[in-house]
Amino acid sequence: MKIGVFKIPQNSPDDLTQLDRLVQQRQLDPATITAILGKTEGNGCVNDFTRGFAVQTLKTYLQSKTDRQMAEQIVYVMSGGTEGVLSPHLTVFTCEEADLNLPQRMGLVLGVSRTRDFLPEEIGTLTMVEEVAAAVEAAIAKAGLTKPDVHFVQIKCPLITALHLKSQAEALQPVRAQNSYQSMAYSRGASALGVAVAMQEVSFAQLRPDDICSNYSLYSSVASTSAGVELQNCEVIVLGNAPHSTSAYVIGHSVMRHALDREAVAQAIATTGQPIDRVVNLFAKAEADPSGLILDKRHTMLDDSDINHTRMVRAVVGAVVASVVQDPMVYVSGGSEHQGPSGGGPIAAIAQLQ
Amino acid sequence: MKIGVFKIPQNSPDDLTQLDRLVQQRQLDPATITAILGKTEGNGCVNDFTRGFAVQTLKTYLQSKTDRQMAEQIVYVMSGGTEGVLSPHLTVFTCEEADLNLPQRMGLVLGVSRTRDFLPEEIGTLTMVEEVAAAVEAAIAKAGLTKPDVHFVQIKCPLITALHLKSQAEALQPVRAQNSYQSMAYSRGASALGVAVAMQEVSFAQLRPDDICSNYSLYSSVASTSAGVELQNCEVIVLGNAPHSTSAYVIGHSVMRHALDREAVAQAIATTGQPIDRVVNLFAKAEADPSGLILDKRHTMLDDSDINHTRMVRAVVGAVVASVVQDPMVYVSGGSEHQGPSGGGPIAAIAQLQ
Amino acid sequence: MKIGVFKIPQNSPDDLTQLDRLVQQRQLDPATITAILGKTEGNGCVNDFTRGFAVQTLKTYLQSKTDRQMAEQIVYVMSGGTEGVLSPHLTVFTCEEADLNLPQRMGLVLGVSRTRDFLPEEIGTLTMVEEVAAAVEAAIAKAGLTKPDVHFVQIKCPLITALHLKSQAEALQPVRAQNSYQSMAYSRGASALGVAVAMQEVSFAQLRPDDICSNYSLYSSVASTSAGVELQNCEVIVLGNAPHSTSAYVIGHSVMRHALDREAVAQAIATTGQPIDRVVNLFAKAEADPSGLILDKRHTMLDDSDINHTRMVRAVVGAVVASVVQDPMVYVSGGSEHQGPSGGGPIAAIAQLQ
Amino acid sequence: MKIGVFKIPQNSPDDLTQLDRLVQQRQLDPATITAILGKTEGNGCVNDFTRGFAVQTLKTYLQSKTDRQMAEQIVYVMSGGTEGVLSPHLTVFTCEEADLNLPQRMGLVLGVSRTRDFLPEEIGTLTMVEEVAAAVEAAIAKAGLTKPDVHFVQIKCPLITALHLKSQAEALQPVRAQNSYQSMAYSRGASALGVAVAMQEVSFAQLRPDDICSNYSLYSSVASTSAGVELQNCEVIVLGNAPHSTSAYVIGHSVMRHALDREAVAQAIATTGQPIDRVVNLFAKAEADPSGLILDKRHTMLDDSDINHTRMVRAVVGAVVASVVQDPMVYVSGGSEHQGPSGGGPIAAIAQLQ
Repeated sequence: MKIGVFKIPQNSPDDLTQLDRLVQQRQLDPATITAILGKTEGNGCVNDFTRGFAVQTLKTYLQSKTDRQMAEQIVYVMSGGTEGVLSPHLTVFTCEEADLNLPQRMGLVLGVSRTRDFLPEEIGTLTMVEEVAAAVEAAIAKAGLTKPDVHFVQIKCPLITALHLKSQAEALQPVRAQNSYQSMAYSRGASALGVAVAMQEVSFAQLRPDDICSNYSLYSSVASTSAGVELQNCEVIVLGNAPHSTSAYVIGHSVMRHALDREAVAQAIATTGQPIDRVVNLFAKAEADPSGLILDKRHTMLDDSDINHTRMVRAVVGAVVASVVQDPMVYVSGGSEHQGPSGGGPIAAIAQLQ
Repeated sequence: MKIGVFKIPQNSPDDLTQLDRLVQQRQLDPATITAILGKTEGNGCVNDFTRGFAVQTLKTYLQSKTDRQMAEQIVYVMSGGTEGVLSPHLTVFTCEEADLNLPQRMGLVLGVSRTRDFLPEEIGTLTMVEEVAAAVEAAIAKAGLTKPDVHFVQIKCPLITALHLKSQAEALQPVRAQNSYQSMAYSRGASALGVAVAMQEVSFAQLRPDDICSNYSLYSSVASTSAGVELQNCEVIVLGNAPHSTSAYVIGHSVMRHALDREAVAQAIATTGQPIDRVVNLFAKAEADPSGLILDKRHTMLDDSDINHTRMVRAVVGAVVASVVQDPMVYVSGGSEHQGPSGGGPIAAIAQLQ
Repeated sequence: MKIGVFKIPQNSPDDLTQLDRLVQQRQLDPATITAILGKTEGNGCVNDFTRGFAVQTLKTYLQSKTDRQMAEQIVYVMSGGTEGVLSPHLTVFTCEEADLNLPQRMGLVLGVSRTRDFLPEEIGTLTMVEEVAAAVEAAIAKAGLTKPDVHFVQIKCPLITALHLKSQAEALQPVRAQNSYQSMAYSRGASALGVAVAMQEVSFAQLRPDDICSNYSLYSSVASTSAGVELQNCEVIVLGNAPHSTSAYVIGHSVMRHALDREAVAQAIATTGQPIDRVVNLFAKAEADPSGLILDKRHTMLDDSDINHTRMVRAVVGAVVASVVQDPMVYVSGGSEHQGPSGGGPIAAIAQLQ
Repeated sequence: MKIGVFKIPQNSPDDLTQLDRLVQQRQLDPATITAILGKTEGNGCVNDFTRGFAVQTLKTYLQSKTDRQMAEQIVYVMSGGTEGVLSPHLTVFTCEEADLNLPQRMGLVLGVSRTRDFLPEEIGTLTMVEEVAAAVEAAIAKAGLTKPDVHFVQIKCPLITALHLKSQAEALQPVRAQNSYQSMAYSRGASALGVAVAMQEVSFAQLRPDDICSNYSLYSSVASTSAGVELQNCEVIVLGNAPHSTSAYVIGHSVMRHALDREAVAQAIATTGQPIDRVVNLFAKAEADPSGLILDKRHTMLDDSDINHTRMVRAVVGAVVASVVQDPMVYVSGGSEHQGPSGGGPIAAIAQLQ
């Protein structure tokens, strides 16, 4: 398996100028695209339409360049919110048959999978955890990975809009979330626990419904989940290193214990075995520490009624990560429920092999 | 001259619990307070009343502890905005006669001064530059400093509210700012150029009215200016090192060339000659790079109509500075017009002498 | 009982220029002030310090004009949020012994009371409902009112900050609210049900804990409750008409069924028996219809992650009310849980008798 | 000429469910669509991508239903911002050859036109005014209208993004706007003056460059202009009544003198000659009164640094207009520079003929 990685800047959610240039120059074959992770410049919350706009634009473009069925199979994970220095961009993953001329060595491999659509009342429940865990297992298998070599599991998951909540209320179906913004947290949390179950970090048998978005001692060290209005199911991308790879890239990861954990950023890079200037992109999760404290000092993010705390903490972790690599074009996603310890989050690094 | 430095957390703009504890325990004599720099948890923009609330609370408290005249002479500089990890706090500077029992050594000294009140139409003009320059000179002289040893000049300056703008419009007086938010920039910019003139970084003779908030190649490396609705004049605090100091503290500074300039933070600390664990506080200025780029990557802060860019960039620079010292209780103030190079800003560090 | 009503504009939360003018001109005797309802220009949500700033300023001023004990007994209800056309102002209620020279006629009377401080875990519970109901009964009795003649019950109630939530979490005490913003809703809801119980609109015996902020078919038609960070107990003001009044004012009310219920505004004025140009002030509660629909059309307030829906709906109801009386200086307060029907809210009108 | 008018709700910017239903049911022939005015649920400011998303979705859909060239000729005017009660929707205008079986009577006619693309440095200049005036003249002629019977001229105009501003700065080209948000005002203002010139409300010969966005005594009573990031030229739609119409609709207009001018809403409806229940849609422009006062009372919209005043005033005028017709699905657009008097704006009403 030969995985390619392309980091492509965007001037707006519908800007494919740089992607098209790579395609025109035959540096990137659109037929090989397997997954696209994007940071788009919306608010990253409920009414963020930049994610859907970016996906619609990509799908239309790629359908014109490949056949429709292939374009439909690509996993699109758009994470809204480029607060602070974060620079909007796409990370495009391509997958080709192993080139027999290239030597196999421990390097990047990738697997994708999808769950079925979820009902609004399933979001944030053990059912969701279970479905996601199965999908993660499937993606790991497809990638030919062993679990210790999995470094990053990205999931795009659904949310519940006000209209959904209304129709549910009429149907007298109990939905966990009281509002759309809250539903994003439940969706991210249950999805992350699905990863934790698949990765054997958490035992499904011992998991109780109330643990979800409550017992944050349970978490995955490799999960990164983003909720969006543009889908009803979960889409899964698993990244890791395997000996059958012929990719020019390698991945590593660490866990930020708090939003200012600069050491963890350096460590994630170190685990790739490559120097800092070979880093292509970093993928981090961020959350405003629910304790109200960071390094024992009070922060005001949770009490700020003008700016959602997910927006603020993306600015913070984005700045910390970007300051280490001196590159603001990194992937930092908000809301790290059950993704890393409370107030922290996993961070993965992809580097080009020397 | 013996300057004391106290960093005091606040749980709200009117919380003086920790200050009062220090006073009760006789660790801090309120009669010696000369200046108070605060980070308060408002939006740091036009309708930020946390600054005025904090000052009102402090004045009422200190008037009850000292005589009224003394309380009135204290310089209060409240900088609004504790976005991201920034933790609300006060930095209280006390000034006592030199203790003859203490050895004099190169250490912290301080001088304060005030300009006259400005008319709205004077804000952002050469008149303001000139008045501020004179006030800075006066404060430097009071501190007994030579200019090369000045490391930080903090100015609190006025802004123009909508009601002021209206009354000006009726009087057919030309005011530079079209709105209140913009007036904050002009006020900060002209004040900073006042520091630059006093510090001989910029020649007043060669300065043209149009340079203000336009020609950003002109700047001061030690100025930090904050606009607020609660005053009509400028209040100046000059900090530097002098051989006649008997303070236990020392100050240094550097200039951040951009919002992610982690090296400059380390350098500011290094210039104090003290190790990182002796740092008491850092004082930085921040602005969203007006070029729309940071390290050649596009940022979205200037095009975000939901969150003011000054708020976002405080979160960014706050995170970068805090990540270096692993302490979120630092002073980062937004809007660095003519304070450091475009997109960057001065940063000062105060450390306790070993 | 002779109740006076003064509507006083403010240019900032700490602006008492107009109040002081009335006092200087002996039109308003500060010793007779019983309650002050204010609209201040903060966000009306968790980190709105304009309410506390206004109260601190008023207390300091009134303590200098009357004796301290009297100033402490005044009930201050500051409602944050002057979105849209709403114009910041105070409504000052004075209370004097009945002037024997004045004829008694059906007119405005007023009663105030206070509950004990609440623990964070009591906010939003039946305990709170019960305590508030008792306090409302007490205020009605003090006013010498019969329940059918009660037209407006204003309550200022507490909220839970992030720090409180944290300490509660450590104590393993169950708190209903997951965050501070949500705690404001629970506090307003339980307080409103307290009014409903006192007014016999809802039976306490039949009330279940889960009804609070859930079963919105239960509501009071005269309750108006506002949460704020500046108190831990509830403060109650009851307004109605009584035959022993010698006031020059009269009060009436109606209930807005939805945010655009212009007819209810007109009806509230009609119930005073006075023409529209005698209206002194209107007091309305507003909420973004939780169904996601207004008059069967979708609204986007609940899905807007940039602006809190309480802010938006204050702008809406403020505009509707102000358009009827062609005066933007009206009192509209956000968050009408159990105050009027879902999506609507009570509206009271005070008019000067001809 | 037979103009059809369809008001179509949307559940998101890319929701065409209701439009498609009308097309499927053959109530609306997509080949006859001439113009689409939409209210989309973004912030209506610089980084509002809901407008572009809606247009992209519509274009893709209509290209699949008609031929590409026809879809390209449709004028799309998406106005962002459905604050408060405003409900996202499209108003679709169709144009067919006059049906000889239908009687001609004074009724709705429509004309569209486009200017050339503008350079960033042309936005907000007399050049823009002149080009727009010519385009408006052309659209009036196409519609077969006489100027007194023109009731509404809608223009979609460009803005300048931060990247444009940067490239301009490097080219040393003077651009009037200092930032993107401000460029929207200049673009709207110059476009509106273009309408005023075409309608002979303002003399082009006497217009000075500095009048644009400064001398607000100059205005059009029928202009409605919206700026968006998705185009570089201006697109013009002129609506009026003409005797050769075979439309079932008629249009009228009035001018709101201020944001609470409920009478003008009623008057706009009255000028259609139809009762209120025949109103299909209302089209209003709104701005936060630049004087800082509404009906002589202070408003806080211009000093609110958390929420842009264009957002707030849309909520206000939307509520006032919707309260008159008891229908929140109306078209209210922000930023009324030179559109109606300062603080007010034109309002047009389309009604179905009885």
